[in-house]
Amino acid sequence: MLTTAGKRRANVMTQSWHMMIEFEPPMVACVVSNRNFTFDTLKATKECVINIPTVELAEQVVACGNSSGRDVDKFETIGLTPVAASRVRAPLITECYANLECKVVDTREVNRYCLFILEVLKAWIDPARKHPRTIHHMGKGAFMVSGKTIKLRSRMK
Amino acid sequence: MLTTAGKRRANVMTQSWHMMIEFEPPMVACVVSNRNFTFDTLKATKECVINIPTVELAEQVVACGNSSGRDVDKFETIGLTPVAASRVRAPLITECYANLECKVVDTREVNRYCLFILEVLKAWIDPARKHPRTIHHMGKGAFMVSGKTIKLRSRMK
Repeated sequence: MLTTAGKRRANVMTQSWHMMIEFEPPMVACVVSNRNFTFDTLKATKECVINIPTVELAEQVVACGNSSGRDVDKFETIGLTPVAASRVRAPLITECYANLECKVVDTREVNRYCLFILEVLKAWIDPARKHPRTIHHMGKGAFMVSGKTIKLRSRMK
Repeated sequence: MLTTAGKRRANVMTQSWHMMIEFEPPMVACVVSNRNFTFDTLKATKECVINIPTVELAEQVVACGNSSGRDVDKFETIGLTPVAASRVRAPLITECYANLECKVVDTREVNRYCLFILEVLKAWIDPARKHPRTIHHMGKGAFMVSGKTIKLRSRMK
């Protein structure tokens, strides 16, 4: 869930397409459609937080994707708790088990693909949650819930 | 697992960072490090296949990530079966449950981030496999195995 800090208020959107692109500095690429209210705020403020929900928040994740910050304060209507971040104006979502404070470092692919390149400035995680069950959008409201972890001998990073 | 067709032979690499970026035409962004043997081939031929393995192939996935096509024919050493694709010269991997034939449509971010923009030309899937258990690299040989699917009422694509 991507939070931004607009002029009027903070907002949150549900965001499916993102991936790491670099370890050091940690960087993430993500697609935010120009049909989303978040698009203009992200482009203007160049700051956001990526908040990673677990399956317990699935209903809120979908509710967030089905409404727009143009019309409502989604934190209130959905019941998510914003809290001040450390490096950016966009808020952290308390209910999420991890939060990545990010700045936009490259907008060259925004016009063509709505693709933002982010650098992660600060990362938060709830150390009490040892086995967070993340959810992964498969389309049209279907989500894969993360299963077990396997470990193999590997030289991969 | 990303296959390419080099001048000498076809090759396969294990590839972690990829995401959809567009529905129509279907497009995928992925990172292929310039330290990988595949990098030069992909840049030169502008063709590849994304082959999606399931947990049954986890050992091969890691073996593929721990060796280089500079030195060996990985299809032989690892025991993967290449078969001719329809739209590109890179082969499909028979053992994978889905295969996406792709062409590189944008290389503007390759120098800076090793980020390739691909268009999917043709997609194959094994319809007999109703519940493929995919694997998702968490780093250093740890993989999350896909768990159950949940379905919520959503207007999201």
